[in-house]
Amino acid sequence: MELFTARKIDLEAGENTVIMNKEDANKLGLRSQSRVRVTKLNESVTAIVEISETLVKSGEIGVLHRVSGKVDAEEGDELTVVSTGKPESVEHIREKLEGKELSEHAIREIITDISDRKLSDIELSAYVSGVYAHGMNLREIKDLTMAMIETGDTIEFDKHPVFDHHSIGGVPGNKITLLIVPIVAAAGLMIPKTSSRAISSAGGTADIFEVLANVDLSLAEIKSIAEEIGGTIAWGGAVNLAPSDDLIIRAEYPLRIDPYAQVLASVLSKKKATGAEYLVMDIPVGPHTKVVSMEKGRKYARDFMALGEEIGINVRCALSYGGQPIGEAVGPAVEAREALAALEGKYVPNSLIEKSTELAGMILEQGGAPQGKGKEEAKDILKDGRALEKMKEIIEYQGGDPSITSDQVDIGKYSHEIRSVEDGYIGEVNNHGIIGIVRAAGAPYHKCGGLILNNKRGDKVERDEVLFTIYSENKNRLKEAVKLAKHLNPLSIEGMILEKHPDYKTV
Amino acid sequence: MELFTARKIDLEAGENTVIMNKEDANKLGLRSQSRVRVTKLNESVTAIVEISETLVKSGEIGVLHRVSGKVDAEEGDELTVVSTGKPESVEHIREKLEGKELSEHAIREIITDISDRKLSDIELSAYVSGVYAHGMNLREIKDLTMAMIETGDTIEFDKHPVFDHHSIGGVPGNKITLLIVPIVAAAGLMIPKTSSRAISSAGGTADIFEVLANVDLSLAEIKSIAEEIGGTIAWGGAVNLAPSDDLIIRAEYPLRIDPYAQVLASVLSKKKATGAEYLVMDIPVGPHTKVVSMEKGRKYARDFMALGEEIGINVRCALSYGGQPIGEAVGPAVEAREALAALEGKYVPNSLIEKSTELAGMILEQGGAPQGKGKEEAKDILKDGRALEKMKEIIEYQGGDPSITSDQVDIGKYSHEIRSVEDGYIGEVNNHGIIGIVRAAGAPYHKCGGLILNNKRGDKVERDEVLFTIYSENKNRLKEAVKLAKHLNPLSIEGMILEKHPDYKTV
Repeated sequence: MELFTARKIDLEAGENTVIMNKEDANKLGLRSQSRVRVTKLNESVTAIVEISETLVKSGEIGVLHRVSGKVDAEEGDELTVVSTGKPESVEHIREKLEGKELSEHAIREIITDISDRKLSDIELSAYVSGVYAHGMNLREIKDLTMAMIETGDTIEFDKHPVFDHHSIGGVPGNKITLLIVPIVAAAGLMIPKTSSRAISSAGGTADIFEVLANVDLSLAEIKSIAEEIGGTIAWGGAVNLAPSDDLIIRAEYPLRIDPYAQVLASVLSKKKATGAEYLVMDIPVGPHTKVVSMEKGRKYARDFMALGEEIGINVRCALSYGGQPIGEAVGPAVEAREALAALEGKYVPNSLIEKSTELAGMILEQGGAPQGKGKEEAKDILKDGRALEKMKEIIEYQGGDPSITSDQVDIGKYSHEIRSVEDGYIGEVNNHGIIGIVRAAGAPYHKCGGLILNNKRGDKVERDEVLFTIYSENKNRLKEAVKLAKHLNPLSIEGMILEKHPDYKTV
Repeated sequence: MELFTARKIDLEAGENTVIMNKEDANKLGLRSQSRVRVTKLNESVTAIVEISETLVKSGEIGVLHRVSGKVDAEEGDELTVVSTGKPESVEHIREKLEGKELSEHAIREIITDISDRKLSDIELSAYVSGVYAHGMNLREIKDLTMAMIETGDTIEFDKHPVFDHHSIGGVPGNKITLLIVPIVAAAGLMIPKTSSRAISSAGGTADIFEVLANVDLSLAEIKSIAEEIGGTIAWGGAVNLAPSDDLIIRAEYPLRIDPYAQVLASVLSKKKATGAEYLVMDIPVGPHTKVVSMEKGRKYARDFMALGEEIGINVRCALSYGGQPIGEAVGPAVEAREALAALEGKYVPNSLIEKSTELAGMILEQGGAPQGKGKEEAKDILKDGRALEKMKEIIEYQGGDPSITSDQVDIGKYSHEIRSVEDGYIGEVNNHGIIGIVRAAGAPYHKCGGLILNNKRGDKVERDEVLFTIYSENKNRLKEAVKLAKHLNPLSIEGMILEKHPDYKTV
């Protein structure tokens, strides 16, 4: 046991970290990534050691703000430091790397330690790598899901049943939640929807709905709004649902891996934590989405349903066409505008109406509508204005302006039209290219970064016809996005000659 | 591209890291673990982003000292920051996680990026995890070994051939190098031995020899001493041999995993980098060592020889008994003393003499001694004092006092005898327990932390007879070590009754 003087260092490491002087570390036999127990009076926390030669002097210990928060350490406080062993969960991570099946206890240890930020980035990455390399069986995934739920907050509704909807994403322009929630709620069912913000996309549902209302709701607000008016669209990240998920994503994101077991557990843990009893899943399938083949889509569907049964959620899945954006608009502001326009009964692309009412209809059927009649009922609710009325109510309850119309949504001061350089038919639409352009225009942070497609796959276009229009609230960002659009060429025109052999000009 | 003002932050992260204000990061679409290119005038470096809300203000960028060093950034300098993609090596790491064979190119990309500190801890851990989960074939291991060599410095000797020795470790008290090097050099062969310091052991060869001489030699010093007097014992960490190895260990150590392919490549890359043409490997086998069965030991032997052939080193291996410490002494100072005593011809345990001369003999046979006669020749060199003379020469060339005798080695002011509580025979010796006690006594940082065994496996002991003596230069550390010794009981006495059923006292 050694005494140190606290020096506060504000740095948001993913883990509990303290910084020790190299000399002190040597004396205590500690090295980078060693673990110590740091104590101030009666409060203790386990932290991971990093070494510095000058940031802290000998006798000082640098406490990053997660650590100082836990032991309430102020600058100059006296802290005791004791070298400590690895948590048991690291042994279980190694077992998974060796291809072993993990017990319920082992999985709970791992998820608890991740939630408590007891694991270093190196250990966390090894966990994600192990699950990616060797997978998990249904029993392990069930235990993983339950552990993720139990290490976070949950909502207990007084009204039942609770309906929910989720899309596993990957297709741009997927603003369907802004139609599904008001349709389902207008039908008298309760749907407390939590959504994510964009990670690698142009805008998550939370980013889009934030254009119209506040999405940072507490669990109590989600509960009371849903119970009162039937529907809500909240940002899941503002509440502490299955918090290990965000910490696990910290390792998945830089590796660009989505371990299959982790995807299943991530989705259903958040749904279960918000009380879902009936869930309709949208699984977009297409070459530039997360799920690239029908076969993989069917596997997801089977496994989501099986896992749902294990944890008490009735899950139905729809494999949807993910080969190009849904509707015409991509980006928070233009998507919010398009969704509002659809609710107002104005012209919007058929793909958006069909997909939204199909999925809403599946929920209505779970809620008692006659089999095969759900979509029709959903369309009626959309067409006769009941969905728009419910949407205004939701916007109002979430602190937005319920009188807003689609024309009034600010979509950015600056725009630029991208035109076809050839006659022909639009062959492929590259989702990744579309997303890249919209992000270059500022989305999701700047709500007006966006793009509206004037043409989609299969459309005949003539030379100089507008293919799509880019929007931004900033001239420089618009310029960057236009440059990228010209480089990426996300709408390929078939019938365009790429090369001629031999080159007849020279013959 | 955005301009930021540099704030220097001295922190030794394993990777190139910059710290950005949360608001700036959001605006640029960056998150924790994103990559940016940081430029000052003509110097650039790729760095990994961490986020802080207060450590740096908006408009500032915190540069950790690896980064500031590379672009020569001073406090207040203007730096440009551009978001940049992931290195190609991360794709290859993912391939390994998926169980794919990696191409030579892929392996070279990974090792180059690790050496250049371009990979984050998360990515590095995924690499180590992938190799641990899926292994590598001989072709991959060869490419890995060559990539590890080529990303570091190498020694080109003017004299040939170059002999070398290596023990894969795991058994305490293994001071054999301090006998092997002078014996081999006294026989007229050249053996430029680089050794490691302790990571998890009580003392590496470099820690032990440092008691007698300076081990921080440059590559030029290693070369000139070896060419002049035939032998040297240097710390491999003071020079830049296969530097990716230390960085890879940064991830292996906290996970306590030693991917098999990485162990092979780690050993032979360092040997090849120091010019080895002939190598004798010691592979200790025993229940508390790295290699727990003869079968695994034989696999190591086969693979070391096969890999050696691929990269041009003639490798011979000896599987040795690793069931208990070699000799009687464990800890830097006591081991240095024991090795010197052996060279001086004083009484030392037979196990030390036999093992050292057996291995030295194998090297002498590689160098031309008649097959089967090497050990005898090694024993002659040890007995007639030639090895001691050579050792004095090595100590002198490495800045130590050549007149030192074993009696003069300082082994610590304080000692405590641990006695048997029963009559019986010593059954098992727990290597891990021995190491733990010696580390508690201060080793390897404090050279005098150590332990001398008065009895070993199979010895008959009586109640109150001394089992071992602990040494330290510090009273408190000695007390800690004694406490641990009583708790761990590393020498189990057979014949000791553990329990009686039924308990006859109550019958």
